[in-house]
Amino acid sequence: MKITIRPAKPEDCKDIERMIMELAVYEKMPDQVKISHKELERDGFGPNPFYQCLVAEVPEEHMSKDGQTKVGYALFFYTYSTWKGRTVYMEDLYVMPEYRGKGIGKALMATVAKVAKEKHCVRLQLSVLDWNKPSLDFYLAKGAEDLTAKEGWHFLRFHGIALDNLAQEAP
Amino acid sequence: MKITIRPAKPEDCKDIERMIMELAVYEKMPDQVKISHKELERDGFGPNPFYQCLVAEVPEEHMSKDGQTKVGYALFFYTYSTWKGRTVYMEDLYVMPEYRGKGIGKALMATVAKVAKEKHCVRLQLSVLDWNKPSLDFYLAKGAEDLTAKEGWHFLRFHGIALDNLAQEAP
Repeated sequence: MKITIRPAKPEDCKDIERMIMELAVYEKMPDQVKISHKELERDGFGPNPFYQCLVAEVPEEHMSKDGQTKVGYALFFYTYSTWKGRTVYMEDLYVMPEYRGKGIGKALMATVAKVAKEKHCVRLQLSVLDWNKPSLDFYLAKGAEDLTAKEGWHFLRFHGIALDNLAQEAP
Repeated sequence: MKITIRPAKPEDCKDIERMIMELAVYEKMPDQVKISHKELERDGFGPNPFYQCLVAEVPEEHMSKDGQTKVGYALFFYTYSTWKGRTVYMEDLYVMPEYRGKGIGKALMATVAKVAKEKHCVRLQLSVLDWNKPSLDFYLAKGAEDLTAKEGWHFLRFHGIALDNLAQEAP
């Protein structure tokens, strides 16, 4: 099957929104999704985009049971290490269940790595839930280091009222 | 003591480089720092900056023992949640030891939160080493959630040969 990996265009945002929701359903948290294709279009395609996205596309003759040809995506953005310089963070990597096991996830991730190298980024980083063993094993098998296990990094978040309170303390 | 928190300018990069190194010495990993003010200038002040930075400055009459007036910094960048939209990640927060306990770290972090809110970001995120209890307690006391402890998020990284190998697998 011929699979195309290409940068997302604004007109892909409805499909990206659909797949974001599919991924959230898989993660059993669909009610957490507060984003729509409108925000995705605004935030990903302006002069200073907040993210980059790749989509995986199959020919029409291989469309999914429900008629989809865009069957996977990888969403990432540029980050920065004050020790090493430019880095990339991959926020989401998703392939529709009926297209798994065909190397599409690997091709998406490898293309993110290629884009990272072209932009002179020295790291590709991501986060995985510890119960998601298949994903964790997939990344570790490809050579990723688990910095939480190895060095003890914990991931912290301010949001909601905690973020409001913090912002109000600004001088 | 009058403390000014303001956005960094290109001419601050030598001081930011100095403080990045001071922070790495505190973290006992100074040999890990591969960045200089030249990369900081290039990457932080172009049309699509890779990061944003705030500096904390004191008046000349309060300069440090070694003659510094730029005594702290917060370096951050915009990230993206496919569930919630725009977010901010704070990579570094640093205050020179002789200026600690004066609220400068809190003022820097609160200003990052304020900038985040102005940009309609719904989260401010960061990472902390589990042995760094003072920092962890500081953030938790301000309302941060520890997502590694609470939800099991692990932080993964591809770099060096693993990143090269990955990029070479791109279709």
